[in-house]
Amino acid sequence: MSHSLAGILLTWYALDDPNSPELDDLAGKFQLHSLHIEDCRSNNERLKAEGAENYLFLILKYIQAVQDGDISFGNLFLFVGKEFLITIRDPNCESSEVLQRAVKAGGEEKPAKLLYLIMDSIVDSYFVSIDHSDDRIDDLQDSVLDRPSPETLESLFDQKRKLIELRRVLVNLRDACMSLQRESGAILDPELYPFFRDVYDHSLRLLDSVETLRDLLNNTFDVYLSSVANRTNQVMKVLTVLSTVALPALVISGIYGMNLKGLPFLESDHGTEIVVGAMVASTGVVLWMLKQFDWL
Amino acid sequence: MSHSLAGILLTWYALDDPNSPELDDLAGKFQLHSLHIEDCRSNNERLKAEGAENYLFLILKYIQAVQDGDISFGNLFLFVGKEFLITIRDPNCESSEVLQRAVKAGGEEKPAKLLYLIMDSIVDSYFVSIDHSDDRIDDLQDSVLDRPSPETLESLFDQKRKLIELRRVLVNLRDACMSLQRESGAILDPELYPFFRDVYDHSLRLLDSVETLRDLLNNTFDVYLSSVANRTNQVMKVLTVLSTVALPALVISGIYGMNLKGLPFLESDHGTEIVVGAMVASTGVVLWMLKQFDWL
Amino acid sequence: MSHSLAGILLTWYALDDPNSPELDDLAGKFQLHSLHIEDCRSNNERLKAEGAENYLFLILKYIQAVQDGDISFGNLFLFVGKEFLITIRDPNCESSEVLQRAVKAGGEEKPAKLLYLIMDSIVDSYFVSIDHSDDRIDDLQDSVLDRPSPETLESLFDQKRKLIELRRVLVNLRDACMSLQRESGAILDPELYPFFRDVYDHSLRLLDSVETLRDLLNNTFDVYLSSVANRTNQVMKVLTVLSTVALPALVISGIYGMNLKGLPFLESDHGTEIVVGAMVASTGVVLWMLKQFDWL
Amino acid sequence: MSHSLAGILLTWYALDDPNSPELDDLAGKFQLHSLHIEDCRSNNERLKAEGAENYLFLILKYIQAVQDGDISFGNLFLFVGKEFLITIRDPNCESSEVLQRAVKAGGEEKPAKLLYLIMDSIVDSYFVSIDHSDDRIDDLQDSVLDRPSPETLESLFDQKRKLIELRRVLVNLRDACMSLQRESGAILDPELYPFFRDVYDHSLRLLDSVETLRDLLNNTFDVYLSSVANRTNQVMKVLTVLSTVALPALVISGIYGMNLKGLPFLESDHGTEIVVGAMVASTGVVLWMLKQFDWL
Amino acid sequence: MSHSLAGILLTWYALDDPNSPELDDLAGKFQLHSLHIEDCRSNNERLKAEGAENYLFLILKYIQAVQDGDISFGNLFLFVGKEFLITIRDPNCESSEVLQRAVKAGGEEKPAKLLYLIMDSIVDSYFVSIDHSDDRIDDLQDSVLDRPSPETLESLFDQKRKLIELRRVLVNLRDACMSLQRESGAILDPELYPFFRDVYDHSLRLLDSVETLRDLLNNTFDVYLSSVANRTNQVMKVLTVLSTVALPALVISGIYGMNLKGLPFLESDHGTEIVVGAMVASTGVVLWMLKQFDWL
Repeated sequence: MSHSLAGILLTWYALDDPNSPELDDLAGKFQLHSLHIEDCRSNNERLKAEGAENYLFLILKYIQAVQDGDISFGNLFLFVGKEFLITIRDPNCESSEVLQRAVKAGGEEKPAKLLYLIMDSIVDSYFVSIDHSDDRIDDLQDSVLDRPSPETLESLFDQKRKLIELRRVLVNLRDACMSLQRESGAILDPELYPFFRDVYDHSLRLLDSVETLRDLLNNTFDVYLSSVANRTNQVMKVLTVLSTVALPALVISGIYGMNLKGLPFLESDHGTEIVVGAMVASTGVVLWMLKQFDWL
Repeated sequence: MSHSLAGILLTWYALDDPNSPELDDLAGKFQLHSLHIEDCRSNNERLKAEGAENYLFLILKYIQAVQDGDISFGNLFLFVGKEFLITIRDPNCESSEVLQRAVKAGGEEKPAKLLYLIMDSIVDSYFVSIDHSDDRIDDLQDSVLDRPSPETLESLFDQKRKLIELRRVLVNLRDACMSLQRESGAILDPELYPFFRDVYDHSLRLLDSVETLRDLLNNTFDVYLSSVANRTNQVMKVLTVLSTVALPALVISGIYGMNLKGLPFLESDHGTEIVVGAMVASTGVVLWMLKQFDWL
Repeated sequence: MSHSLAGILLTWYALDDPNSPELDDLAGKFQLHSLHIEDCRSNNERLKAEGAENYLFLILKYIQAVQDGDISFGNLFLFVGKEFLITIRDPNCESSEVLQRAVKAGGEEKPAKLLYLIMDSIVDSYFVSIDHSDDRIDDLQDSVLDRPSPETLESLFDQKRKLIELRRVLVNLRDACMSLQRESGAILDPELYPFFRDVYDHSLRLLDSVETLRDLLNNTFDVYLSSVANRTNQVMKVLTVLSTVALPALVISGIYGMNLKGLPFLESDHGTEIVVGAMVASTGVVLWMLKQFDWL
Repeated sequence: MSHSLAGILLTWYALDDPNSPELDDLAGKFQLHSLHIEDCRSNNERLKAEGAENYLFLILKYIQAVQDGDISFGNLFLFVGKEFLITIRDPNCESSEVLQRAVKAGGEEKPAKLLYLIMDSIVDSYFVSIDHSDDRIDDLQDSVLDRPSPETLESLFDQKRKLIELRRVLVNLRDACMSLQRESGAILDPELYPFFRDVYDHSLRLLDSVETLRDLLNNTFDVYLSSVANRTNQVMKVLTVLSTVALPALVISGIYGMNLKGLPFLESDHGTEIVVGAMVASTGVVLWMLKQFDWL
Repeated sequence: MSHSLAGILLTWYALDDPNSPELDDLAGKFQLHSLHIEDCRSNNERLKAEGAENYLFLILKYIQAVQDGDISFGNLFLFVGKEFLITIRDPNCESSEVLQRAVKAGGEEKPAKLLYLIMDSIVDSYFVSIDHSDDRIDDLQDSVLDRPSPETLESLFDQKRKLIELRRVLVNLRDACMSLQRESGAILDPELYPFFRDVYDHSLRLLDSVETLRDLLNNTFDVYLSSVANRTNQVMKVLTVLSTVALPALVISGIYGMNLKGLPFLESDHGTEIVVGAMVASTGVVLWMLKQFDWL
């Protein structure tokens, strides 16, 4: 891929692997700082933008694949000079989509404009991811109110984890955009400022949306908890009503089951009717009391 | 609508559709930045205010309709120059109410004053929406204390969602007002400053109110949860008292139902009275113990 | 009241009604900004302090009456010039207490010093209100630990609502004090600075106290919730112990109530003693197991 | 005490009572601001540090006595000039410990150095109090995990209240230290700066510790709540297992207690063995189902 | 150890004990501030970085040993001058790992570069600790969803305590890095700035990770609580269904156990079949009602 891209623009070096010796050559040629080369090669760096003497160094993170409740980020390292652009992608990540728009415009634009195109593509991919989350959370809210189950709970927390992850990247994106505006020095032409400010604005809006989604998720979790509490309450009521219905009958039948003398109606022909009637009546009285005194 | 409004003031261009070619003509005529035109045409932009070289660009959001527990916002895009005003409304939203005051004053005022009148109308519509929420929350608080039900829970969270939405718009409004004061450059006359500061003050007060409403809603949710916990506790007590009343009778009647010899009072004529008396007495003792030792 | 006060100091205009035409006369005479006049006449404005060209405009809120769990605020509008003072009170609020100290000093002091006296009186009234809340919260904490009831819950949330309200006013008071120090321009003599700084300090301390009270209230609510959880747990234990005591007896008496042949001790003269002894023993064993394995 | 201390250093005035007329004399002599004198005499002031023209005014709060779960603060008022030091202590508080180190160094040091010694002693007393809290919280955490009781809950919230109190004082101490560094003007020699910065650093560390303790307390409270929830769950399980064991036996013995014809095994000599065997078997089946389908 | 290290670089003084008199000698020789010497000798100081006239003073904290759910920190005190480096380690802590990289580079580098190497090693040890926490939290999340037990709860809170501790140290590290950049004065060459900025960046990323882990832990705790609530709900349902199954049978068999006349089917040969059929039927009806009306 490096070569085909290099064909489009003489000064665009698109590396596929931060560990390739080509990067060392470029570091020598363009006086790239050794710490930046280390950053490219170490794993797990923060998204950031730093101005060096004659270039800007950026670590960007793009969303690679959105699976249910989980996202994974790919790293893209950029050195943006006045006359050159070096892009280095994670060897085990696809990055073509994010670079596509820049590749199309590649031959005719300055490195800084290409940087804008790449950042704008990345920001767009975040919007897609957030829309996706939004839909999922809507579904979850419906299912929580209908029937709270441990499975919905699990996907609820998967979404939460995803948002925590996304928020962290976006905060860094926002800070990087801010420091780009401050430190860009000679690399960014003033006429490009509104474009980078636009990216900054979009990162703010993304953060906004993530916060809103987090609030909605917390709402959904609260609804979940109160639904479970409600249902326990409901189950307890059913148990209590069942007991209320059964207990008077059990007590009375227990009494008439005793081998004692002198129980009333024992010898009466209507004994059964009278005693069963008494059971029904006492059950009715207890139910009426529960209702009357608002005990349930 | 564009034409009738244009009739009132020669330099007010009131477009009904951001996608109309008229906007491109105006963009050419007044040197509007391509990113701002894009903003008008893209969906889902943040409320904001930006100063360009010779005009101010604003995206405003007005409340279109307040339905129970849900609000929807319409976008209004404005280009405010020294000598011209371009307003572009969402094609599928009514915006006449928000523009009414400006239309009335249209022929005689400067664009910046018209901008103030429009912003003031929008802020007023927010106050109406907040008063509406306030009433709803009062109702909810009453119904939660009387009888907590899943339905009240649902409208509680609808209100919460609404406030999350509103808060987000208001934070942006506040920031836009602040950047208006900073970036207005040559567009706003100093004598208009107090007016825009007034809008800023109102946006602060609106945010204040939203925060207070959020606090109150959280209170209401806490009351809900504790009411459910209380009720479960209450139901458990009823069940326990019922069991307490029934169990001694059941045990004693069970014993006297056994086919064994040697049970006391079996042959006594007052057996029934004595045994039933024992049931009542033991039930009384258990109830007295529950009360005495504060077990319930 | 306007006239009697006006008699004390020629340049103090004490109006009882913001809608009186007198205010318009004064606005003309002292060049008061139309937005400030509007503020006086509109309802529901935020407490604030603003510096205009030749006067300070303040909206103050004083506590009118402290009823159990609820407070209501009265508005006081002030225009403080170098040589004049205009105070306008809510027509349906008593404000004499707040103005008393200023009235006493009225003839001899400058408008800015009178402003200080009024603000100091208002701040004092807040202290009284907070002390009142403090006592109420102490009572609530005691009653929550003794016996958590829905009534204590309700007054708990009433106190919370009151503090939310008070906090909001105090935040604005603090900001107003701060902007007074910044914008007072020619109106406040430097020798008055320590006095206004004192008011600012008091507003900080009040906010401090409100935060502490809020923390204490949240504590109290947490105690409430855990008390209810504890009591439910307690009730469950009682129910379980009751069942434990009764079930073995019920099972054994049930078995001996069956019309079957071959039950042991059926014919024994000590059958009853043996079987009842077995009941007591098995109940004892179950209770011992509950205790031994820490199941309750 | 005033006199003995005054003996050590001619210009150290150590008053025991802010209401003594001596303070008025000193106010006249050293031109102390009337608001500062008021502060000394009013109750309930915030800890603070203020620079006046020719002296520093400080209100310090030292811990008087640490009782279980409660602390009380004593006030110490200081006027620190270039050549004089006035210390005024709460009449009903012991303050000797806090002043001891300063008294020892008294004759040889400047007022500002004495101020440092006093502040350092006060900060040390806070460290003791925090260590004390730390131990208590450790104990509470152990007892909550072992056996959550309302008593541990109560001391948990006592600790929380204590930390709220302490945090409030420490925030003010930090702010006072900061304003000392800013406003000390001519009173503090530059060579004393590192010493006051040290006090500031210690106040930061104390706040740090209070925050950590608060986090730990909140943890402990969460453990408490989940322990209670766990125990309720446990009690419910015991009750359910008890019912499971008893109910099949009760149903079967109930059936065999009916006065009906045609029950199987009624006449069998092994009827009892068969029926009791059926009871045990059905109980076993239900228990096996509970376990098998993970219903408990 | 002091001597062997001293052998590598003439001006590196590596002390093993802050209480050794050697430190006093060095303090005299290099004019170290007495407060810094005190800091070295006192226990329990905050991690910090301070610039003195001719040196930088740092207190660093490195992770000594990571045991399950608990970490302990060792202190390292550094005086970094233009031409000398003094490192003082806690006498009862191993610190060799942290110093290793600096020892290797020792002979050839400036003190400030050695400081960077030490700080970088310390930061690396934090990353290891955080990865360790990450794995533990993943395990906990799995076990909470599978089977919430008090033991998982306990390790959950152990992890929380650990993160509270770590966060506190990292906040101080970040602040120390920031003040290093500000106050380093003549000690740090400008070409070292990117290196210290790198350490600062890493401390930010570490804080980021700790925040994310805390969020995840809180999630896990919420899952725990809702799992327990779910299980209690589940247990209640089982109990209610058991009661539902048993109660109709008990009531009917109780009725047929009474010694009354006139019960239907008493004399019928199919009495048993009919009555037991009625038991099964009524149980079925109650179960159907529970299901039909969504009572469980």
